[in-house]
Amino acid sequence: MQDDALAAQYRGYIAALNTQRFDGLQDFVHDHVVHNDRELSRAEYQAMLADHADAIPDLRYDVVSLLAGDDEVAARILFRCTPVREWAGFAPTGATISFAEHAFYRFRAGRIARVWSLLDTDAITAQLGGGQAHPGA
Amino acid sequence: MQDDALAAQYRGYIAALNTQRFDGLQDFVHDHVVHNDRELSRAEYQAMLADHADAIPDLRYDVVSLLAGDDEVAARILFRCTPVREWAGFAPTGATISFAEHAFYRFRAGRIARVWSLLDTDAITAQLGGGQAHPGA
Repeated sequence: MQDDALAAQYRGYIAALNTQRFDGLQDFVHDHVVHNDRELSRAEYQAMLADHADAIPDLRYDVVSLLAGDDEVAARILFRCTPVREWAGFAPTGATISFAEHAFYRFRAGRIARVWSLLDTDAITAQLGGGQAHPGA
Repeated sequence: MQDDALAAQYRGYIAALNTQRFDGLQDFVHDHVVHNDRELSRAEYQAMLADHADAIPDLRYDVVSLLAGDDEVAARILFRCTPVREWAGFAPTGATISFAEHAFYRFRAGRIARVWSLLDTDAITAQLGGGQAHPGA
């Protein structure tokens, strides 16, 4: 797959997330995917993403940098959102928070096979720290 | 600058870091650089990198994914190293730790003008947490 085609495929994946089509990711995600060294079925991966959106109803993936190689994508994603229930070990405070995700994806035959994702947990802690559900988690 | 040339330039930058040539980064870094929204002179940026290597003498940048665009680079970097003094808010424990950095770079005229970097602080906390110098930092 050419770089441009892979970038377009990735943008299709993000569009699916931003319209909360979590049950329809078979065009973008393999039957099994490894997320930060955790092996998940696509159903489990979709459930994880749906759970984020359930905890944060206004969650929107804003891709501000996108680089595509032969079978890899790197994306810098910004979020500005308001968690309404516990998420990522943090209790909600009512605050709207802003933070970045830096994610690398390995594609195979045009679909995501691996994801390595880091969130800016320091920024999240600074904005939601008072409501941390599991201190030190 | 073409993608391949930019990737080669980035690898030259990493080679300089891995041979601790922190005082000679003028070929790779602009006179001023913004690192995670902090504006630094190149001297301050070089001092920051030298300080990391001083706290972690066996620090080595192992680039496992590298994507280059017109003026952007994304790199996934792995570290396996042994901090010997306080670093990133963590006191050393003698433990050798492994963690990832996900960094995005904006180049201008072939030199780094901006860096957005995230470290896997959860992994670092899990491995050095007992020696955290500034809990919650």
